[in-house]
Amino acid sequence: MVGVTDLVTFGETMLRLSPPRGERLETTEALDVQAGGAESNVAVGAARLGADAVWFSKLPDSPLGRRVIGELRSHGVRTGVAWADPETSRLGTYYLEHGGEPRGTNVIYDRADAAITTVTPAELPTGALESADYFHTTGITPALSDRTAETTTTLLRAAGEAGVTRSFDLNYRAKLWDPETARAAYEELFEHVDTLFVPRRDAREVLDREGDAVEIAHGLASAFDFETVVVTRGTEGAVALRDGEIYEQGVFEADTHDAIGTGDAFVAGYLAKRLDGGEIGDALEWAAAAAALKRTVDGDLAVITPGDVESVVDGPGGIDR
Amino acid sequence: MVGVTDLVTFGETMLRLSPPRGERLETTEALDVQAGGAESNVAVGAARLGADAVWFSKLPDSPLGRRVIGELRSHGVRTGVAWADPETSRLGTYYLEHGGEPRGTNVIYDRADAAITTVTPAELPTGALESADYFHTTGITPALSDRTAETTTTLLRAAGEAGVTRSFDLNYRAKLWDPETARAAYEELFEHVDTLFVPRRDAREVLDREGDAVEIAHGLASAFDFETVVVTRGTEGAVALRDGEIYEQGVFEADTHDAIGTGDAFVAGYLAKRLDGGEIGDALEWAAAAAALKRTVDGDLAVITPGDVESVVDGPGGIDR
Amino acid sequence: MVGVTDLVTFGETMLRLSPPRGERLETTEALDVQAGGAESNVAVGAARLGADAVWFSKLPDSPLGRRVIGELRSHGVRTGVAWADPETSRLGTYYLEHGGEPRGTNVIYDRADAAITTVTPAELPTGALESADYFHTTGITPALSDRTAETTTTLLRAAGEAGVTRSFDLNYRAKLWDPETARAAYEELFEHVDTLFVPRRDAREVLDREGDAVEIAHGLASAFDFETVVVTRGTEGAVALRDGEIYEQGVFEADTHDAIGTGDAFVAGYLAKRLDGGEIGDALEWAAAAAALKRTVDGDLAVITPGDVESVVDGPGGIDR
Amino acid sequence: MVGVTDLVTFGETMLRLSPPRGERLETTEALDVQAGGAESNVAVGAARLGADAVWFSKLPDSPLGRRVIGELRSHGVRTGVAWADPETSRLGTYYLEHGGEPRGTNVIYDRADAAITTVTPAELPTGALESADYFHTTGITPALSDRTAETTTTLLRAAGEAGVTRSFDLNYRAKLWDPETARAAYEELFEHVDTLFVPRRDAREVLDREGDAVEIAHGLASAFDFETVVVTRGTEGAVALRDGEIYEQGVFEADTHDAIGTGDAFVAGYLAKRLDGGEIGDALEWAAAAAALKRTVDGDLAVITPGDVESVVDGPGGIDR
Amino acid sequence: MVGVTDLVTFGETMLRLSPPRGERLETTEALDVQAGGAESNVAVGAARLGADAVWFSKLPDSPLGRRVIGELRSHGVRTGVAWADPETSRLGTYYLEHGGEPRGTNVIYDRADAAITTVTPAELPTGALESADYFHTTGITPALSDRTAETTTTLLRAAGEAGVTRSFDLNYRAKLWDPETARAAYEELFEHVDTLFVPRRDAREVLDREGDAVEIAHGLASAFDFETVVVTRGTEGAVALRDGEIYEQGVFEADTHDAIGTGDAFVAGYLAKRLDGGEIGDALEWAAAAAALKRTVDGDLAVITPGDVESVVDGPGGIDR
Amino acid sequence: MVGVTDLVTFGETMLRLSPPRGERLETTEALDVQAGGAESNVAVGAARLGADAVWFSKLPDSPLGRRVIGELRSHGVRTGVAWADPETSRLGTYYLEHGGEPRGTNVIYDRADAAITTVTPAELPTGALESADYFHTTGITPALSDRTAETTTTLLRAAGEAGVTRSFDLNYRAKLWDPETARAAYEELFEHVDTLFVPRRDAREVLDREGDAVEIAHGLASAFDFETVVVTRGTEGAVALRDGEIYEQGVFEADTHDAIGTGDAFVAGYLAKRLDGGEIGDALEWAAAAAALKRTVDGDLAVITPGDVESVVDGPGGIDR
Repeated sequence: MVGVTDLVTFGETMLRLSPPRGERLETTEALDVQAGGAESNVAVGAARLGADAVWFSKLPDSPLGRRVIGELRSHGVRTGVAWADPETSRLGTYYLEHGGEPRGTNVIYDRADAAITTVTPAELPTGALESADYFHTTGITPALSDRTAETTTTLLRAAGEAGVTRSFDLNYRAKLWDPETARAAYEELFEHVDTLFVPRRDAREVLDREGDAVEIAHGLASAFDFETVVVTRGTEGAVALRDGEIYEQGVFEADTHDAIGTGDAFVAGYLAKRLDGGEIGDALEWAAAAAALKRTVDGDLAVITPGDVESVVDGPGGIDR
Repeated sequence: MVGVTDLVTFGETMLRLSPPRGERLETTEALDVQAGGAESNVAVGAARLGADAVWFSKLPDSPLGRRVIGELRSHGVRTGVAWADPETSRLGTYYLEHGGEPRGTNVIYDRADAAITTVTPAELPTGALESADYFHTTGITPALSDRTAETTTTLLRAAGEAGVTRSFDLNYRAKLWDPETARAAYEELFEHVDTLFVPRRDAREVLDREGDAVEIAHGLASAFDFETVVVTRGTEGAVALRDGEIYEQGVFEADTHDAIGTGDAFVAGYLAKRLDGGEIGDALEWAAAAAALKRTVDGDLAVITPGDVESVVDGPGGIDR
Repeated sequence: MVGVTDLVTFGETMLRLSPPRGERLETTEALDVQAGGAESNVAVGAARLGADAVWFSKLPDSPLGRRVIGELRSHGVRTGVAWADPETSRLGTYYLEHGGEPRGTNVIYDRADAAITTVTPAELPTGALESADYFHTTGITPALSDRTAETTTTLLRAAGEAGVTRSFDLNYRAKLWDPETARAAYEELFEHVDTLFVPRRDAREVLDREGDAVEIAHGLASAFDFETVVVTRGTEGAVALRDGEIYEQGVFEADTHDAIGTGDAFVAGYLAKRLDGGEIGDALEWAAAAAALKRTVDGDLAVITPGDVESVVDGPGGIDR
Repeated sequence: MVGVTDLVTFGETMLRLSPPRGERLETTEALDVQAGGAESNVAVGAARLGADAVWFSKLPDSPLGRRVIGELRSHGVRTGVAWADPETSRLGTYYLEHGGEPRGTNVIYDRADAAITTVTPAELPTGALESADYFHTTGITPALSDRTAETTTTLLRAAGEAGVTRSFDLNYRAKLWDPETARAAYEELFEHVDTLFVPRRDAREVLDREGDAVEIAHGLASAFDFETVVVTRGTEGAVALRDGEIYEQGVFEADTHDAIGTGDAFVAGYLAKRLDGGEIGDALEWAAAAAALKRTVDGDLAVITPGDVESVVDGPGGIDR
Repeated sequence: MVGVTDLVTFGETMLRLSPPRGERLETTEALDVQAGGAESNVAVGAARLGADAVWFSKLPDSPLGRRVIGELRSHGVRTGVAWADPETSRLGTYYLEHGGEPRGTNVIYDRADAAITTVTPAELPTGALESADYFHTTGITPALSDRTAETTTTLLRAAGEAGVTRSFDLNYRAKLWDPETARAAYEELFEHVDTLFVPRRDAREVLDREGDAVEIAHGLASAFDFETVVVTRGTEGAVALRDGEIYEQGVFEADTHDAIGTGDAFVAGYLAKRLDGGEIGDALEWAAAAAALKRTVDGDLAVITPGDVESVVDGPGGIDR
Repeated sequence: MVGVTDLVTFGETMLRLSPPRGERLETTEALDVQAGGAESNVAVGAARLGADAVWFSKLPDSPLGRRVIGELRSHGVRTGVAWADPETSRLGTYYLEHGGEPRGTNVIYDRADAAITTVTPAELPTGALESADYFHTTGITPALSDRTAETTTTLLRAAGEAGVTRSFDLNYRAKLWDPETARAAYEELFEHVDTLFVPRRDAREVLDREGDAVEIAHGLASAFDFETVVVTRGTEGAVALRDGEIYEQGVFEADTHDAIGTGDAFVAGYLAKRLDGGEIGDALEWAAAAAALKRTVDGDLAVITPGDVESVVDGPGGIDR
C-alpha cells in the first residue's frame, strides 16, 4: 500500500455469474464471469475516472480470490486485501439472469459465510485509509455479519479521526435484513458519515422519511448532521443538499444493455469529480453521465473513461440543468 | 407410461436451427439447436406450469431423436414415442433466421418425410390418453401426411370416447397446404373437438368466418358445437366463449427476444390453469402471461415457472380486464 | 415416485463450473455449467444404459436446484428430491480447471452448508427405495454433515431390510475429512453394504489394507462380509471378488477429453449390466467400457448409450480377458 | 478478369475487428472479423442484387489479404487485385466498438501505409474497366495517399474515355484530411464524375454549399456538370436530381443492428437497379430499401437478396413517395 | 460459365453440422456449419492449389443453397448449379460427431431426396465440361438416385467424347447401397473412367479384388483399361500404376484435428499437380501432403495453399520415397 | 512509479490476434485477443512468481493502448509507459495461427511504425530503473527502430551505472533483421549485459559460435565478459555458466496447448527465483518449470503461481538433475 490514495472503499466483491441474454439460469450451459460488488464497483469507476483508489476486503487465497484482484487491478484499483485460508473460506457468488419485461432481471445471491464476514480492521492496511481524501462504503457491508458491521464502524471512526471524508451509500438489500434492523444499524453508523447517498424509495421505506426528495434531503441532513445528502429518484434524476443549497441533476438517456452497477457508477462519477476539485453540481453531472454510460456496458463495472464522461456532459445528448 | 396424466399432446417436433442475431443463414458459421414443435411446446409449457404432461410422437431411434426426448424430459414432460428405424427415417428440421424490421423473421422448413408421417395409433401408448383430462393437438399434425391425419382423427375419437376434453389449435401453415384443403380437413376434425384455439385472421382467411372476434367465436361455436372457443387477435388480446359467456383478455407488454412459440405458450398457460381448476377468465390471464413471458426467452419453449406467471398476473405490469 | 425402480442412488449434486481448455480460473471470463455429483453421475450412467434409476437428494427450490433436476431428467433419471427454502439454503458448486501435464487438473469445492447437509429420511420418497433392486451411495455423502451420515445409515439399513442390494463406492475425499475419521465412519457403514467399490490406493491409505488388489479384495470381503468387492487400480484395470471367485478386467484405451466421472461411469456400467442380469465378468467389462467412453465426453456425466458400450466390448479395441 | 462486367469499384478494404455487443475494446477478449471498405461494400451489395461486379484494389499476398478476397468472392464479387509483398506491406484494419446512447459507436482506424497506398493503374486489370457500365469510387480513396489520388484520377479519366458512367460517393472522413484539402481534391475529381452521392451535411461543411437538399443538388449539378446528383439527408431520406427533375425518397424504418455500411448499401441498391434498367425513382427506392435492410445485418456488408429488397419496396412497411 | 476451366467436378454438397469437441449430438446446444461433399471438396482443394475449378450440382434456390455456393466461391471455385424450387426441394445435411477412442467419429446422413437427386444433364452448363482438362466425380453420386446415376454416366461419356480426362474416386458408402449393387454400378461406369482412386479395403470388399495394393492396381488396370490407378492404403501410403510403372508414396505425419475430407484433399492435391504439368510421382507427393495438411484444419475443406504443400514436400517432415 | 522495484523490463507489446484451434486466418470469423510481447511476458511471469515488476514502453493513448496496460496490470505488473498521440501512432499487432504437424504455427507481424519506435529515455520513468535489482530487455527491442536501439543502449548503460544487473535475451527475429546486422548490434550491446540468455541455434547461426552448449557458454562468457550465460537447447534443456561453474537443467514434460511465450516464461522463472535469493541451479529449475507450465496455458502470458512451480519442481514429474 504505497503511494498517494484519493479514495478507499471497503466491502464485499463476489463472482458474478450470468447466462447469455435470452437464456435462463434453469437451462443455461454457460455463464459469463465477472467481479461485482458495490464498493469495488465504486473503486473501479473512480479509478477509471482518475482517482487513485484502494479497495479493502478479505478474500480466499485461491484462484477465485486472485481472479477478483486481477480484474480490479486491470482497471487501476490497488487492493488492500486480507487473505483467508482457501480450505476454510469461500468467495461469495451471485447469479444474474437478465430478463426483459414482463420477466425482469433476477438475482440469486450465494454469499453466506464469504471470507469477508470474518474481516477485522487489524487485517487491513489501514495506513492507506489515513492518508486518503475519501472513505466509501455501503449499507451492504454491515449487513454481512456482526464482524463486518464492527469493522465498518471501526473504519468509519478511524477515517473520521484522520479527517477523511466518509461517504456512505445506503444500498438497502431486502435479502440481507429487514427494514427495521437495517434502520437501526444505519442510524448508528450515520454519526460517522459525511456524505450520504440514498434512493428516495429507501429513504421512505427503510428510513421512514416523508416528502419529496428535497424534503428528504433536508430532513436527513438535520437529523444526522450530514455534510452532504444526495437523494436519487430513478428516471427523475438526483437532488443534492449541501450547506443548505439544493442541486438538481437530470438523467442522461441511455440504451440500457446492463443496468446492474448504475448506482455505483453514479457514486464513482460523483467522487471522482469531487476528488478532482469539482463543485457539487459538476460532481452530480459526472455522476449522472457515468451512470448513463455504465448502462451501455456489460457487467457491474463502469468501463468508461473521463473522455466518455466529458462527451456526455458536453454533448448534444446532455440534459440541461 | 405410468402415473397420473393431466394432458396428452400429439404432434411433430423438429430440430430448430438458428444463427446468432444479426447473422443470416446464407453466411452463418454456427447454429443454435433446440427442439421445437407446436404440441411439444404446449406440453413443455403446461408441464412447467404444473401439469403432468405426456407427448406422443414418432422419432428416429438416433442421437437426434434422443436429443428431442432429452430436451423435453428436462422440462418434466413424459414421452410416449414410437421409435422409427434410423436408417430409413429422419427427424424434421427447421431453420429460423431472426430479423428486425424491415427484414422480418424467416423460417425454412425441412420436414418432409419425417418419421412422424408414418405414425399409427397402434404404435403409441394410448392407455395414457384414456386416463388424461385433456388431449391437445394442432392443425399442423393432420397436414403432415395422410397417415398423421388418420391417426389424429383416431386419437381425437378415442379421447372423446374416454371422456377426455379435446383441445385443438388451428395453427394453419400455408407452407403445408392451401386454405381450401385445410378447411375441409379441419371441419371433419371439428366434430371431435371440445376447445378450439383460433387466430382471428385464420378464422377469416381459412375458415371463411366474418365479423369481429366475438362474432367469430359465436359463429364457430354454433356451427361446430364447441364447448369453448378462444379467438386470439394479436396485440389486441384474446376472446373466449363458453356457455354463451364472453371473456376478454388483454396482452401483457413484453420485450420480445424470440416470438416463436408465443401461441403455444398461450395454450399451455390456458390448459395448465384449467387443469389446476381455474375458471376460463383465470385461464385466459395465465395464457396471456405465459405468452408474454415466452417472448423474453430464447427458443420455442416457454422456460417459465408458475411463480413467473403469478408475478405477471399480480404485478404492476398486469393489464386489468 | 411411480413406476418400477431398478436403482436408487443418494447423494449431493453440485453445479460444476469450468473454464475453456487452456484458460485458468484466475483469468477466465466464461464458465461452462453442468451438474455433477458421484451418485447422480451413477444414476445418469445407469439410466442411459437401460436402468430405471431414481436419485434421492435435497436441493434449494430455486432456478439452480431446478437446473440440476432438469439436467438429470434429460438423461432419463427420475428424481426424489426434498426441496429446501431458497432463501436459507444453497446449492454446492465446484470449479474445475482442466490442465495438461505438468499442471494437472484442479478442483475447488464450494460445497459447505449445501441444502443436502440437512436432509432427513422423512423428507425423501423412501417408498421407491423399497421396491428397488439396488441402492447406491458413496463415501462422500456421510462426509458432508452429521445429518447426511445419519441419513445414509438409515437408508442403507432400510434398503437392507427391504432386501435391496446395497452398493457403496468408497470415494475418499481428502478435502472433506482425514483418513482416520473416514475409516471409522466407513467401517460402521460396511455392515450395511453388499457390494463395495474401492480404489486400491484408498484401500491401502484409508482402510489400512495391504497386498495386491486380489489380497485386498479377499481381506475386505472376509473382514466385513461383503457379497462382492471390486478393487480398481487405475490403468491396470479392476479386480472383483464374489463367492470366492476372482474376476479380472483390463482397461479400454481412451483419448481422454475429460477424466472427471470416470469412476462413476465404471460403477454405472457395472450396475446397469447387473440389473440387466449380467454376470460379474460381463458387468466388469461393461464397467470398463463405460469408463473409457466417459473419458471422451465433456462433463461429469457418461453421455453414452448401450450401443456405444457394445461397440467397445465387441470391437477391435477391446482388451481380451 | 473474364466475362461481362456491369460495375467496377476501386478502393481500400480493411479487416474490421469488433468486440461483442456490450463489451469495450479496452477489455474485450474476442473480436469478430469481417472485411469492410466503402467500395467493396458497394461491390458486394450490387453483386448480391444482381450486378456483375469487380473490385479493384491492392492487398498483401498473405492469409489476411486472401481472407479479404475470399469474403468478397463468397458474395459473388470478382476481384482485380494487385498483390503486394507480404514482408513489406500491410492490410489496414479498423476497430469498431458498438455502443448505445449516450456512448455512441467508436471507430479506431489503423490503416496508414496499407498496401493500397502504393497502387498504380498499371497493376490493375483495367481492361475490365473499359467494358463496364459503371465505375464507382469514393472520396476515401484519394485521401489515402498521393499515389491513390493519382490512380483514382487516372481510372476515372480512363472510364470516362471508355464511356463508362462514373459514380462517386463523397464519403468525407475527417480522420484522413481536413475539409479544405478535401474540397480542393474533390473539385479536381468532379470533372470526371457523372453521378455524385453526397450527404447534405458534407455538402454544407466540406463543399461549402448552402440551402436545402434540392438547392444543393441544383447548385452542384450546375457547378460541376454532373449528370445525376443524389443528396442524402439521414432520417429525412434522399433527393436526386437528373435532367432537371427532382426525385424524392423516404426512409424505410429499420431495427438497427449495425449501422455501418448503410450508405454503401444505399449506393449499391441504386446502382444495381440502374444497371438493371431501372429509372432514377426506382433506383432510389431500391437504395433506401437496401440501406434499411443492411441495418438489420451484422457487418459492413449488405447480405441481402433481390427478394428482400422487393419485399420492402412492395411491403406494408414501404413508405410511399 | 466463362473462362478457362481446368477441372469440373460433379456431385452433392451437404450442410455439415457438428457439435463442439467433447460434446455429443444427443446433448449439444450448438452446431458448427460448413459445406461438405466429396466432389466440391476436391474442387475447393484443387482451386486453392491453383486449378481453375468448376463444380456442377443442383441446389434449392434458398438461403441454404446459396450458403453452399458462397462458401465454395470464397475458395475460388466457380459453380455451375441448377436451381431447384425451394418449396419442393431440399438440401441434404449430415451430422458429424467427433469422438476420440474408443468412441470413434459418428456420421448421420440426412440426404434423402436432396435437390441433386433430380438433376439432369440439360440443367447443367455442360459447355464448361467440354473445354476442361479433367472431369472428376465419385462413387457417391450414382448412389444418390437413378437420375444421378444416369446423369453421371452422361457426363462421363460427354467428357470422354470431348477428350477430357475422367477421374473417379470409388468412395464406397455402405449407408447408400450394398457392395453387390455398388459393384455392378461401378463396373458399368468404369469404361468411362481414365483415372481411378480406390482404397485397398474397398477394392477387396466391394470390387472383390485380391492381393496387395500393387496387385490390385495391376488387376484393375487390366480388367477395365484404366490409364491410371491409385490405390490408397491408410497409414501405409498410396500406390499408383500408370503405363505399367508403379509409384509409391508414404504418408506425411499429421496431428489430426479433423480427418473428414482427407481422401478428397488427396485427390485434389493429385489433380492440381497433374493439371500444373506434374509427373505422377510429384502428383502423389502433393496428394499426400495435401491430405496431411487437411487433417490439421477443421471442416471438410482443405483450406491450404500451394506454399503449405511445398513446405511439407520440401520440409524436414517429408517422408522420402 | 512509487514503491520497491525488483525488475524493470523494456520492450514492445502487441495485440495478439489468434483464430480458434483448427481454423485458419484465411477463413476465421473470430479472433482471440491478448497482449503479447517478450519483455512484458517476462514482467508478467516474474510478477506472478513474486517479483515487483515494472514494464517500460510507449503506447498510443487509445483504448487499444489502455487494453495492454489493463491486461498487464491484472497480473500485478506496474507500468511505466509513455503515451503517444492516438491520431498519429499505432499499436503493433500480430496474428497467430496455431497449427499441428505438418502445418506448423504461423505468425504474421503487423508491427511497423508502432508507437514504441519513437520512444526516448526522457519519456520513461527511469527513476524506477535506478532502484531495481534487474533490468531485462531482449534482442527484439533494438531491432524495432534506430530510436529503440538508442534507447535500449541508454537504458542498459544507466542500469549498469546504477548497479542494476542487466539481463538480455537474444531473441533473434529473422523477420526484423538479417543475422549480420543483428550480430553487429548485439555485440555492441553485450558490453552492457551481465546475464545473457541465448538459444544454442542462435548462438551458432547468428553469433557464429561453435561447439556444444557448454562450449558456447564458455566462449561467449570469455568474449564478452558476461557474469552469467544461459544457453537453451530445446527439448534437451538448458545450461548455465557462472563463475566458471556449469549448471545443467532438463526439461519438464508438458502437454503443449500453446508454445508461444515459453522462452519468456523460462526467463521469468529464472529471474523470479534469483530475485528471491535463489542460486543459479534453483533458478534454472524454476525457469524450466515455468516454461513447462506456460505450455499448458493459452496466450503469451505465463498465468501461473509460485505454488504451481513448486508442484512441478517437487513433484513426481520432476526430472532430476
